[in-house]
Amino acid sequence: MAAAAKRVVIIGGDAAGLKTAARLRRLDKDAKIDVLERGHILSYAACGLPYFLSGDVDSFQELVSTAWGDVKDEEFFRLAKGIETHTGHAAVTIDRERNVLTARKDDGSEVDFPYDVLVIAVGAEPYRIEVQGCDLEGVQCFTRPEEAKQLRRGLETGGIGRVAVIGAGYIGLELCEAFGALWGAGTVLVEKENQVLPRMLDREMARLVEQELVKNDVELRLNCTLTRIRKQGEELVVVLSDGTEENVDRVIFAPGVHPRTDLAEAAGLKIGPHGGILVDNQGRTSDPSIFAAGDCAELPFNGTSHLLPLGSIANRMGRVVANVIHGLDDQLPRLFGSAVVKVFDLNVAVTGKTARALEADGVPTESYWGSFPANAHYFPESTDVFLKMVNAADGRLRGLQAVGAGEVVRWVDAFAQILDLAEGNPEALARFEHAYAPPFATAMDPFHHFYSMIEAGPDLVIHPEDLRDGGEARWTVLNLLNEKEAENIEWPEMRGRRVDIPINDLREHLDDLPDRDIVAVCARGTRSYEATVLLRNHNKEACYLGGGVRMILS
Amino acid sequence: MAAAAKRVVIIGGDAAGLKTAARLRRLDKDAKIDVLERGHILSYAACGLPYFLSGDVDSFQELVSTAWGDVKDEEFFRLAKGIETHTGHAAVTIDRERNVLTARKDDGSEVDFPYDVLVIAVGAEPYRIEVQGCDLEGVQCFTRPEEAKQLRRGLETGGIGRVAVIGAGYIGLELCEAFGALWGAGTVLVEKENQVLPRMLDREMARLVEQELVKNDVELRLNCTLTRIRKQGEELVVVLSDGTEENVDRVIFAPGVHPRTDLAEAAGLKIGPHGGILVDNQGRTSDPSIFAAGDCAELPFNGTSHLLPLGSIANRMGRVVANVIHGLDDQLPRLFGSAVVKVFDLNVAVTGKTARALEADGVPTESYWGSFPANAHYFPESTDVFLKMVNAADGRLRGLQAVGAGEVVRWVDAFAQILDLAEGNPEALARFEHAYAPPFATAMDPFHHFYSMIEAGPDLVIHPEDLRDGGEARWTVLNLLNEKEAENIEWPEMRGRRVDIPINDLREHLDDLPDRDIVAVCARGTRSYEATVLLRNHNKEACYLGGGVRMILS
Repeated sequence: MAAAAKRVVIIGGDAAGLKTAARLRRLDKDAKIDVLERGHILSYAACGLPYFLSGDVDSFQELVSTAWGDVKDEEFFRLAKGIETHTGHAAVTIDRERNVLTARKDDGSEVDFPYDVLVIAVGAEPYRIEVQGCDLEGVQCFTRPEEAKQLRRGLETGGIGRVAVIGAGYIGLELCEAFGALWGAGTVLVEKENQVLPRMLDREMARLVEQELVKNDVELRLNCTLTRIRKQGEELVVVLSDGTEENVDRVIFAPGVHPRTDLAEAAGLKIGPHGGILVDNQGRTSDPSIFAAGDCAELPFNGTSHLLPLGSIANRMGRVVANVIHGLDDQLPRLFGSAVVKVFDLNVAVTGKTARALEADGVPTESYWGSFPANAHYFPESTDVFLKMVNAADGRLRGLQAVGAGEVVRWVDAFAQILDLAEGNPEALARFEHAYAPPFATAMDPFHHFYSMIEAGPDLVIHPEDLRDGGEARWTVLNLLNEKEAENIEWPEMRGRRVDIPINDLREHLDDLPDRDIVAVCARGTRSYEATVLLRNHNKEACYLGGGVRMILS
Repeated sequence: MAAAAKRVVIIGGDAAGLKTAARLRRLDKDAKIDVLERGHILSYAACGLPYFLSGDVDSFQELVSTAWGDVKDEEFFRLAKGIETHTGHAAVTIDRERNVLTARKDDGSEVDFPYDVLVIAVGAEPYRIEVQGCDLEGVQCFTRPEEAKQLRRGLETGGIGRVAVIGAGYIGLELCEAFGALWGAGTVLVEKENQVLPRMLDREMARLVEQELVKNDVELRLNCTLTRIRKQGEELVVVLSDGTEENVDRVIFAPGVHPRTDLAEAAGLKIGPHGGILVDNQGRTSDPSIFAAGDCAELPFNGTSHLLPLGSIANRMGRVVANVIHGLDDQLPRLFGSAVVKVFDLNVAVTGKTARALEADGVPTESYWGSFPANAHYFPESTDVFLKMVNAADGRLRGLQAVGAGEVVRWVDAFAQILDLAEGNPEALARFEHAYAPPFATAMDPFHHFYSMIEAGPDLVIHPEDLRDGGEARWTVLNLLNEKEAENIEWPEMRGRRVDIPINDLREHLDDLPDRDIVAVCARGTRSYEATVLLRNHNKEACYLGGGVRMILS
């Protein structure tokens, strides 16, 4: 007698849930697979919502269609994927004694789904911002399709001219671009931290993004919170903690998300310290017949647990969970939270930890950073990339931040592999082999330069923030720019004395410099690094401004 | 008493030689470093020559200048780098008994350079094509600045309307673009192999490049060699092995390069099986006080030796050689020959071995390939990337070929690390973590799909060339495209019967299909992979066309 078909019930009809279902169907043609979705849209590309809002993506339909134009509805999943999906089915209770999930349908009736295996893939939801006026019309989040559709209509009909965005995480920044770039709507961006993208970037890298926002007419309010919102005629008035008020047509909350765990908590499943459904590296919860995947799950690796609400990871978890349900040996690898966001004409990609995050965890760090041409400097479309590498004090690489107008993802994807396959060993930077031709790259990759910087040690370099706050005229700033370059530079206020010696003249003018506290400065850090080595070879205490003058002009 | 300063003589004033010199100077302020260059230009960006020819790079000056606009001449190297360079000094003999290099100056006089360490970095030179007429005016190579300058003048003055390029390696292809894209000069591209880029790509990937060339009016002559050239009035007549003749204004030889070894051979240094100066992985030749670096060297790794005439590797070797001369422990890592070339609007990047090369070495291979959206399919600027992965039959990954309009370098740089850090273990594909957002990537990376393909095994997939040559009406081609997609497809001649069943209808029409020899075909391979799994789950012998219908339309 054949074994009975396995009954797999999956709660949540988005990336993690449907990936689990589709993979499992390929592995097991007989399993009974039911996917429950409380809404009426399946598998919509949530990451694409800002691009629907901006008009880059013309119709919402494209976000719920396959690459070949089929709408991903219940029929599609049944016919093309062999999966039963049930929209308008909200999961209400898990009976772990009887292995039954109960769902409530739109008409209020309840229906039971007995399961052998249950997968919770209910995602995350935005934090609530509980201030006076948060329930006014025109105040909203930006996570559900209806919220995006309604905003888009407002933009199309000219009813939205100015918007307050609360939260400068990646969704907040995508919204600024969506409002501004195509529709010309002004945005006030409010962030409680002292920088944008506080979970992705360190302060000096965030400055580059802040420049780009300001250049695109975004009004930045850092170190600032929302106090209350009130109605004034047709408009909303946003009252901020710095005492200012802003009149806008809409207020959008983008304060980040937290896992949806109500169902799991009610069922007594273990919740992790960060508030997600705690799973092992196979996606299994504290109940061995229940799995969790995607944004609702809290994942264990590197000796602790993490929330990584990213579409890429939701997809990968779906695959792992399906494999494990089918009895295959699979597990999630270490993850580093690689992410990327487009901010107007600037691209920001990261992997691993920021110095900010490591220091908050009490981990001492060393940092290296620089600005590099992304392709041959003589190539007409040459762009710069700013890179910052963060090491733990034990010398292991821990994270990379990349900001630039060009292909910054390339370095982040490569670096994540160094974190994983080489366990952060900096030797991998020296080993790094890259494909070079003038339109695409430079003959020496920035990673090779980083290896030299690490070999030279962190005390060779000075941080732009330190130079700004140099104290009592301590520094002699050795400006190595040649005359032509210097013409285009407006030097910022700096404490200390500036001495202008182009690199070609330096060897002859060593005696004009003091014996200590020299900071060499050039365009990107190349010449100033060489100058610093030269000065030290002549027993002068010197360091250089990593990343060059562009880091202090921001 | 201090040790006497080390005397280091370097032959060759380009990437490898000057990198060695500059690095060594940073390490050792006292060493006496002399760089000899037979020509009169130092450190020119040879890889940039095609972009000077095309006009992308406006003046030749830019190719011999730093990013900050300083010309890299003898004075620059002396003042900025602390290195003595000697242009117009051709090395003529190495006296290994006395450790003296003799150079001949432009005026014919000779000068001796005693050395403690000698570095040979004399590069490579193009193969000679010895046919009748190869010495006619207007027949030339394209490696020296003067050759490029003279061609550019011809283009600017309208004296060049049609060109024959002999050799479809990457320089030949860059030349086709340089002549065609800006100047509108027609090109006839002659290649003795049955495909373009025979050292970089396998046949079916080369077809994609050939399409791009034809689209840009390049006349392709594959399986064809140059028989002779004759003068006819102002024009040159190129006579080809297929009996045809072409009238052109110029003939450019781009048949690839071989290492310059005359000096080393005369000095009795060991030459490798591929004709380069044989070095160990520290760059040391058979004489322990003589090093070789860059395109003239033959490098040992993976149990054999290799020629890798690439600017990126020349730079890295320079650094290693300088470190070793200074007594530091350093060596070249394994190298895989990562390279990239732009061919009109298509980018071609590779690392590791092709199936063609492995099979020529008698190594059995398995291949996997596909076409993928490079970013979210609903994103307006979505482009496709074609990837081919080559495994040895032992399951180890050995090479990747990437062709597409977008950022193909990203995958090649990541894959080179899998070859190196993970030693080609395919598990690294499943572990691969990538930064995802709709403008940049897809939620599942192509590498994750490749892992699924490898798990499924090579017999699930059929090669486009095999489908073309299907023999006696063997196949039933299961066309899964929907109606709208099919409208835009002109099906190629194929043996076998075609059955049209959109994926959504497949489950209901399983009985309409035979039990064997089914080839599922869709746009990119996604649906046809799923269909194949479904058919096999229902005991039908099926496979799918990897990469989808675009692979057979070419």
